[in-house]
Amino acid sequence: MFLDLRCKRSKFIQKGSCENMINDIIQAAHEAGSILLATADSGMEITRKSNHELVTTADLLSEKYLKKRLLEIEPEAGFLGEESWDGDFPEPPFWIVDPLDGTNNYAHGYPVWTVSIAYWSGIEIEYGCVYDPGRNETFSASKGSGAWLNGRQVFSSGTEKISDCIFATGFPYHRKEDDLGLDLGVLKYFLGRVQGIRRGGSAALDLAYVACGRLDGFWEEHLKPWDMAAGYLLVKESGGEVSAYEGGKWTPAAGGVTASGKQIHSEMLKGIGQ
Amino acid sequence: MFLDLRCKRSKFIQKGSCENMINDIIQAAHEAGSILLATADSGMEITRKSNHELVTTADLLSEKYLKKRLLEIEPEAGFLGEESWDGDFPEPPFWIVDPLDGTNNYAHGYPVWTVSIAYWSGIEIEYGCVYDPGRNETFSASKGSGAWLNGRQVFSSGTEKISDCIFATGFPYHRKEDDLGLDLGVLKYFLGRVQGIRRGGSAALDLAYVACGRLDGFWEEHLKPWDMAAGYLLVKESGGEVSAYEGGKWTPAAGGVTASGKQIHSEMLKGIGQ
Repeated sequence: MFLDLRCKRSKFIQKGSCENMINDIIQAAHEAGSILLATADSGMEITRKSNHELVTTADLLSEKYLKKRLLEIEPEAGFLGEESWDGDFPEPPFWIVDPLDGTNNYAHGYPVWTVSIAYWSGIEIEYGCVYDPGRNETFSASKGSGAWLNGRQVFSSGTEKISDCIFATGFPYHRKEDDLGLDLGVLKYFLGRVQGIRRGGSAALDLAYVACGRLDGFWEEHLKPWDMAAGYLLVKESGGEVSAYEGGKWTPAAGGVTASGKQIHSEMLKGIGQ
Repeated sequence: MFLDLRCKRSKFIQKGSCENMINDIIQAAHEAGSILLATADSGMEITRKSNHELVTTADLLSEKYLKKRLLEIEPEAGFLGEESWDGDFPEPPFWIVDPLDGTNNYAHGYPVWTVSIAYWSGIEIEYGCVYDPGRNETFSASKGSGAWLNGRQVFSSGTEKISDCIFATGFPYHRKEDDLGLDLGVLKYFLGRVQGIRRGGSAALDLAYVACGRLDGFWEEHLKPWDMAAGYLLVKESGGEVSAYEGGKWTPAAGGVTASGKQIHSEMLKGIGQ
């Protein structure tokens, strides 16, 4: 059923030569979203990656589909996907894909999960798309062309005071009770200072929400490239600020991220570094 | 525009004599939801109740509408609404209303907020409705008749092991940095033991999600009657377990709540009491 939806032009696209590349990426994200919705309805097998982290047949199906589909759009690119990663970065350019961000939510029926697709040139994320099938919201960006939500340009928050902010964060999977000191320290620091802190469980969606101003900021350590890559470009193109977790240039290997509206980024980093 | 939607029968309803009372309540919740969506689109004034807590013109409009509407449905009942409460409980029976649960989210455009309506007989919550306009999801329950989501019966989670659970929680508004010790202690306890912890920012919705099994459990201290009343009945009618925060019978004056699927409630209370 998904083959019918494919862009017939895709195999002829040369990198950089087609302004419709982002539309092909959006279409691929929608197709993967359809696979995930259909699998949620029909049931799935769930296995554990670790104590806290699940993987479902839906993750695997979605990644298999996206790998094929994205390599048709850009055959010269490598592919870095959550479920098939061997731990090495491919030669750039490559796709960075989370076929299902928020797997634990998905497996429980908690309706906060997304598809995340990015394209890394080796120097910069050039395209990014985060698709939320539950709300039918598509966040997309091409480098230099702004951030968009369902075809409408969006901008990060202009909030100037941290006391007016709503932030989001996440807690890492690879945790033991005793390792949480630092994360809870940062949480505690912000809890006393902001209007609210949210934890939805999809880092890609949190970054997309920073890009459209629904959240003023987001911080999380111990993230993988696919959790952040598309959201990074969305925030950047929305006029926001995005860095590695403790500051400095973000790259797919940064291992964490701090993103926010422009005015409060340095104050966020201050809280993270305290 | 909302008057046209009113149930013409409502003024003739005698308490307990009409099985359609829950449908009238649902209709009122939908009408309030329409007011909130329209106000979000057209702009609103925002003022601060406290450092962390906002109130908008939308809260006030929604409550004014619901007070009139619900007292038409049941003219003999008192009314306890977030925005007009004077600190005393009315003589039962009374309505317990949150005209906009998740005001901070609403004011920021973070799409997690609800309308919550309950009817307290003096002994028990008899009717409860939580409406999420963003997803067009209506959770409803009448005492003894099960919990329903958009007309489909729902059940709380049957999860037996705490390590398989996703929980939600909240952080109180009335906080100083130093007062957070206990809350973060409970958070830390569960973070090391469960699959994930979520923080959406609408306690009413969190309880509704426990009732339909999207969350395995929810705990929060320092809540008001309107945050919990409808959600309490939803969880109870879904087959779940719901108590005051540290255990014991829940009443509108409980000041907090712990709710979950039946099998893990005692283990949740153990974590909260540690």
